[in-house]
Amino acid sequence: MIVVIKNNQEEKQVNNLIKWIKSLGLAVNVSKGESSTVLGLIGDTTKVDMELIASLDIVETVKRIQEPFKNVNRKFHPQDTVVDINGCKFGGGFFQVIAGPCSVESEEQIIAIAKAVKAAGATVLRGGAFKPRSSPYSFQGMGGSGLELLFKAREVTGMPIITEIVDVRHIDLFKDVDIIQIGARNMQNFELLKELGRIRKPVLLKRGLAATIEEWLMSAEYIMAGGNAEIILCERGIRTYEPFTRNTLDLSAIPVVRELTHLPVIVDPSHASGLSRLVPPLSLASVGVGCDGLIIEVHNDPMHAKSDGAQSLKPEQFADLMGKIRPLMDIVGKHTF
Amino acid sequence: MIVVIKNNQEEKQVNNLIKWIKSLGLAVNVSKGESSTVLGLIGDTTKVDMELIASLDIVETVKRIQEPFKNVNRKFHPQDTVVDINGCKFGGGFFQVIAGPCSVESEEQIIAIAKAVKAAGATVLRGGAFKPRSSPYSFQGMGGSGLELLFKAREVTGMPIITEIVDVRHIDLFKDVDIIQIGARNMQNFELLKELGRIRKPVLLKRGLAATIEEWLMSAEYIMAGGNAEIILCERGIRTYEPFTRNTLDLSAIPVVRELTHLPVIVDPSHASGLSRLVPPLSLASVGVGCDGLIIEVHNDPMHAKSDGAQSLKPEQFADLMGKIRPLMDIVGKHTF
Amino acid sequence: MIVVIKNNQEEKQVNNLIKWIKSLGLAVNVSKGESSTVLGLIGDTTKVDMELIASLDIVETVKRIQEPFKNVNRKFHPQDTVVDINGCKFGGGFFQVIAGPCSVESEEQIIAIAKAVKAAGATVLRGGAFKPRSSPYSFQGMGGSGLELLFKAREVTGMPIITEIVDVRHIDLFKDVDIIQIGARNMQNFELLKELGRIRKPVLLKRGLAATIEEWLMSAEYIMAGGNAEIILCERGIRTYEPFTRNTLDLSAIPVVRELTHLPVIVDPSHASGLSRLVPPLSLASVGVGCDGLIIEVHNDPMHAKSDGAQSLKPEQFADLMGKIRPLMDIVGKHTF
Amino acid sequence: MIVVIKNNQEEKQVNNLIKWIKSLGLAVNVSKGESSTVLGLIGDTTKVDMELIASLDIVETVKRIQEPFKNVNRKFHPQDTVVDINGCKFGGGFFQVIAGPCSVESEEQIIAIAKAVKAAGATVLRGGAFKPRSSPYSFQGMGGSGLELLFKAREVTGMPIITEIVDVRHIDLFKDVDIIQIGARNMQNFELLKELGRIRKPVLLKRGLAATIEEWLMSAEYIMAGGNAEIILCERGIRTYEPFTRNTLDLSAIPVVRELTHLPVIVDPSHASGLSRLVPPLSLASVGVGCDGLIIEVHNDPMHAKSDGAQSLKPEQFADLMGKIRPLMDIVGKHTF
Repeated sequence: MIVVIKNNQEEKQVNNLIKWIKSLGLAVNVSKGESSTVLGLIGDTTKVDMELIASLDIVETVKRIQEPFKNVNRKFHPQDTVVDINGCKFGGGFFQVIAGPCSVESEEQIIAIAKAVKAAGATVLRGGAFKPRSSPYSFQGMGGSGLELLFKAREVTGMPIITEIVDVRHIDLFKDVDIIQIGARNMQNFELLKELGRIRKPVLLKRGLAATIEEWLMSAEYIMAGGNAEIILCERGIRTYEPFTRNTLDLSAIPVVRELTHLPVIVDPSHASGLSRLVPPLSLASVGVGCDGLIIEVHNDPMHAKSDGAQSLKPEQFADLMGKIRPLMDIVGKHTF
Repeated sequence: MIVVIKNNQEEKQVNNLIKWIKSLGLAVNVSKGESSTVLGLIGDTTKVDMELIASLDIVETVKRIQEPFKNVNRKFHPQDTVVDINGCKFGGGFFQVIAGPCSVESEEQIIAIAKAVKAAGATVLRGGAFKPRSSPYSFQGMGGSGLELLFKAREVTGMPIITEIVDVRHIDLFKDVDIIQIGARNMQNFELLKELGRIRKPVLLKRGLAATIEEWLMSAEYIMAGGNAEIILCERGIRTYEPFTRNTLDLSAIPVVRELTHLPVIVDPSHASGLSRLVPPLSLASVGVGCDGLIIEVHNDPMHAKSDGAQSLKPEQFADLMGKIRPLMDIVGKHTF
Repeated sequence: MIVVIKNNQEEKQVNNLIKWIKSLGLAVNVSKGESSTVLGLIGDTTKVDMELIASLDIVETVKRIQEPFKNVNRKFHPQDTVVDINGCKFGGGFFQVIAGPCSVESEEQIIAIAKAVKAAGATVLRGGAFKPRSSPYSFQGMGGSGLELLFKAREVTGMPIITEIVDVRHIDLFKDVDIIQIGARNMQNFELLKELGRIRKPVLLKRGLAATIEEWLMSAEYIMAGGNAEIILCERGIRTYEPFTRNTLDLSAIPVVRELTHLPVIVDPSHASGLSRLVPPLSLASVGVGCDGLIIEVHNDPMHAKSDGAQSLKPEQFADLMGKIRPLMDIVGKHTF
Repeated sequence: MIVVIKNNQEEKQVNNLIKWIKSLGLAVNVSKGESSTVLGLIGDTTKVDMELIASLDIVETVKRIQEPFKNVNRKFHPQDTVVDINGCKFGGGFFQVIAGPCSVESEEQIIAIAKAVKAAGATVLRGGAFKPRSSPYSFQGMGGSGLELLFKAREVTGMPIITEIVDVRHIDLFKDVDIIQIGARNMQNFELLKELGRIRKPVLLKRGLAATIEEWLMSAEYIMAGGNAEIILCERGIRTYEPFTRNTLDLSAIPVVRELTHLPVIVDPSHASGLSRLVPPLSLASVGVGCDGLIIEVHNDPMHAKSDGAQSLKPEQFADLMGKIRPLMDIVGKHTF
């Protein structure tokens, strides 16, 4: 961490600051320039409150050199983390496709779609039971009974299931879910993150609506600081000024995240674009950029889906897409098993 | 709501859509143009799932004409809502200044600051007991004992108190708080919003980090749909590409929100800028633009504040600022009592 | 175009508006709803000033249904435009890789790089002679003598050349350039666009720093309205709040643009990310998403490049990348010749 | 400037870098930390190409501590610059209101509006003769004859005039204009900036559509580096994701800019919001935040304005607004003469 002192400050005040920094267990390297003095803080600055220092009258600016995250940092854990759900592996060259409807709507629906996406090559089944909706008047999901239907679909197809948690009071309800999803709107629901840090279960952590990569990784750090290292990150588009797509898929984030952390990172092209016809090209782009998997919305009857019909592929469209994804995986050196 | 049908669609499919819309209790006005057919949906479209219609193959685009919010909509409730906390009123020409530290740190601290801000003219005391922090390694607040200290400060000064809730399981803990604050990161924590709709207690709803005005009002709609109409909105800056300030204070939102809703709306210049020296000019700008109050961070010792020291005014700076706010309130026709 | 009239307006004023719209040669379909009257404007609304109508007191909102662009609109020109520079074709399944240094620096440099990128499979040579730099103190390019060196490099290698124009007074100077580039900062330099509409020469039009897709296509419309249809669009990243990459590459824009227009569209992964190590993954993503070409910065000595060294690939890195691009082109059905 | 060296780099390469930096006339302070070596560059780093250094393999990151602008920097010129147009002064406590129509449309129109805004207290007349429009089909301004009408209006009213330049070839045409405006779309038209640096005439430099404060000041630096110090900055809203207003007025930028530079800075609330009814509250906010003037669109017949009718005040609305602006100016210590 670099602390730049304002010009012409009293020596005494600067020395007080240096003394205080040393009291935190850090060493300080002082460099006097023509128009400013620069303090270099040496040691583990992960836990230093950068804004506290910036608040001091004598400080012009504080710049972090080390990342504020530690457990998720690739520097301290160079090899890829592989998240393994009964042999279905994410990361370290393993690539999985998660597919299924936005919302679980009925036993027939979820089982039919599960069979169809499995036949096409998907290895994990998605389906929402509790839905965070921006309008209180929109369908809010089937709730607990939706979870039951997902368990049935797992029994029938053998696919592990992933579903979203929206309430910290539901942790127990989710104990038989294979991967617990934290949606974009809850990426900084820190109480929920803390609870998920306490359990031992894979978590899919979506990037927030307008979260920076650093904030996203800090949310992963919350979970990992609690002791749970089974985290899969998921890029799902960020908010920009461009109105044509619901969000702007930030594929540059994939190689950046892979540099910064050892955790696997997948892409959700369905929520990124909000338009089913953009899902195939964005899926191929995502494989090309080097992600560790995809999560794609598939519905057997999008015209009557209770949510997100606009962005759902039909099973046959999904199968077509899988046919293009496989040869591309070879080019970028990814494999499912 | 306007539904634009793609060119050259089969009449039968268009008729099926019209039939389906009518089954929702709406009337449909069909207008055939040269290159598109337009359906005008007439009636209460608040509960229509716009994206469901947009998902249909034959639909080119759907445009909402009526706002998706109803209870908070000024069209259906033209006069200002006045939120009254024991005579301390927000809205309808009443203007209040909320002040206090970011975090409650000790009995001495909170009581000293409470007395100082009251003396300067503040009418509500703020103070965080549970703090949502982006890093798991930052100070997370004093918790329940922080609440106790706020109650003491209220007893001593007679000021109503406002403090932030971060966990839906804490509702009971907050039953003696005067105004419950929902922070920017929880603006779309819908389970929390639903719970706050069930209680009868004023809620301060901050705009999300990158929330649109419509999303913000939809979150207020969640609370009001539950039966709680005591809502104060709070603009606190939005995320933009500009790195100089922590957020970009969106003052255009104030007159826009006042047009769209009858709820009072205040401004938080401290979180918007992140820099205490920007708080006075932004406060004056906020009064000028016509908001119903301010929430300002004040700390008696910013250099040792446990959080947000960088953006806190000292009591004497706050008193100076109040001296400029009062004559400005006259110009824009606002009064405290 | 849909014009929504405010509630409870005088019939006479509405009729005046309808009369005025008809005077523009459009038909009007009137649809009276419960809480608003909607006018549907039928005919060619491309030239209607939408904001003029929105300015009327009686109008609540105006929504465009037809795109405001006409010549570049795929609706009126369904087949792909193929821009052909002496057999080097962009669009219609043809895919080209443009490569070269950010700036032309010397004869040796540009010829060495030209040979190297040609050997690796590039078909067009890029090189800046006039450089738009955000600081007046940065290297501004070699100017006219840089153009001369590009002509030499073309003579030696047979590759067509592309270079950026920054001053409308330079049009004559650029008469022997094969493709004239309009950079992001000049996307809305309308006087320059008008001049390029008057000549007959391929133009590469980069998307502006924070331009919407619609604004980008309107800038292409300026050129095409002047009579020049030889336009290649180029996505180069947009400005967002994410600080890690210089810009956020908006790959969703590629399939969107291909839907909206018949013009070819390529991607510039070098300027999008600003970091050479992100260029290979973003290039593969771009091919996967279905663009018609790439423009990549290559420098034989990035450490001593006079500009943009940070984002330049070395020739051997570029050759490696080309080895991965070719099989991917097959998967998405693209070919160079 | 701070250069952070990657971990475990060869001493020889680091020494080469240090030698190269010293060859630029700078001193280097080396600080070896646990996980990185930090170089502090001491001296005038304004002209150092930061990205060039960042491009080196051994460098992790480069952070600028000094601003990249020099002539416009308040550090080197602490007192306010006052731009004086025949006694009409901007900056140093002087506050002016510029008003007039978006476009000059006829002699009657511009003279009538000029008289009306002068009567209400405006001191400079605005009016566009050359209009940069996003559509080639929109009204492009009266051109040279529009300038003639502005000169007539100046003769009649005695008000100095401001009008926008859009083409570098028009410099001579503008020699009798009092203040030459550079619009948002031309903020980085560097060739135009260079030409305006060569003449001796006040320039109003609008902030670009999505320009950072630093980029904006660098554009002012272009003009001032050429020798012209008569620059007035103008904030006019930035592009964000919020669709309700055309732009988001960034009032935080005003105190920030006043800290960073000695140049006066005014606000354009008309273009910021795009809606005339938002102009009065945003104007009062702008005065409150401490700007040095306002530029407001006024039209005597907005319903028939050839451009920007939606955001124009009528003369009587403008007069009302001026009545509120004056007492507010007193509170913030501003005066017109």
